[in-house]
Amino acid sequence: MEKKIITISREFGSGGRFIGELCAKELGFSFYDKEIMEQVAKETGLSEKFISERGEYSPKSSIFSYSFLGRDSKGGSIEDYIYQVQRNIILDLAEKGNCVIVGRCADFILKDKEDVLNIFIHGTEEKKCDRIQELYKKSQKEALQLMKDMDKKRSIHYAYYTEQVWGASKNYALCLNSGILGFKTCIEIIKNVTASSH
Amino acid sequence: MEKKIITISREFGSGGRFIGELCAKELGFSFYDKEIMEQVAKETGLSEKFISERGEYSPKSSIFSYSFLGRDSKGGSIEDYIYQVQRNIILDLAEKGNCVIVGRCADFILKDKEDVLNIFIHGTEEKKCDRIQELYKKSQKEALQLMKDMDKKRSIHYAYYTEQVWGASKNYALCLNSGILGFKTCIEIIKNVTASSH
Repeated sequence: MEKKIITISREFGSGGRFIGELCAKELGFSFYDKEIMEQVAKETGLSEKFISERGEYSPKSSIFSYSFLGRDSKGGSIEDYIYQVQRNIILDLAEKGNCVIVGRCADFILKDKEDVLNIFIHGTEEKKCDRIQELYKKSQKEALQLMKDMDKKRSIHYAYYTEQVWGASKNYALCLNSGILGFKTCIEIIKNVTASSH
Repeated sequence: MEKKIITISREFGSGGRFIGELCAKELGFSFYDKEIMEQVAKETGLSEKFISERGEYSPKSSIFSYSFLGRDSKGGSIEDYIYQVQRNIILDLAEKGNCVIVGRCADFILKDKEDVLNIFIHGTEEKKCDRIQELYKKSQKEALQLMKDMDKKRSIHYAYYTEQVWGASKNYALCLNSGILGFKTCIEIIKNVTASSH
């Protein structure tokens, strides 16, 4: 079975985005991360910053989204609206050809397609913390807190829209611990699996 | 970091045991599955059949184990006793050299060792069901029920002794869906990861 679409879900600090980008480059696949956000911004008229916050880290992370703010005429929240627009963009991108899509519940959105390889990248606390400290110029304490917050938001967002458990192995063809395996080995595995299923 | 001990946790019907055995053979590693049970039987005087049932599929699967039957003088159940003996055997085996150990919470028992690679093998319902029907001569309905029962028992046993969630990616370096990837690719990935970390 040909796999031409790779979805990457990832823990914050695990390097999943970086691994996905390198895989795309080496495989000659398109890479979609920021591009999805730009497209959502274009279609909704909302700012990229707002979409970035609400497109993967909502809705329970913001208590107001569940109460009286930001409801549309059908009772859906602004996050539900963003999710729908984002979902349609991901479904369209998946029709365009070989690609790597990062985050945004793409594994769930594309779950009925046979040519999709769903991957979850996670890591060891120590290595994720080191990476966050370096990339975002944070203290160890701040990095640990940021890691905890971001993963909590991602997992709640995922659970809300997919009714699945974020990081449960059964949702993915492959789960890789980048802290134990190393980035290079993760990239090799993904490339080999994609090549062998072509 | 050298990885000389591979632990394989697996869903029933996923072929995890088979994959582990082939990896051990191809890597020249010892393979421990039934051998652990035989050793427990030798040390405890209990039958292998009894140990097989209680060593991975207990204790909440048997309501009596929590009530008035099979308690030792310290209040531990017979399953707790088997777990302790099994745990010591696994710790001893891990000191002997390169090996593959299947099931029995070995990933958790050996979690503080640096030379351990923890792997979870799962699969698609359809392919697991086919395999169970073929291996155990069951109808499709029986195979589905057996799969559900066995995995439920394994997950409860695992949760009870490790306080971790069975199949949660964070407990393993690698999680592989044998139904999507195929047995051959799973074996290749495990061999490559083991070789690259040597």
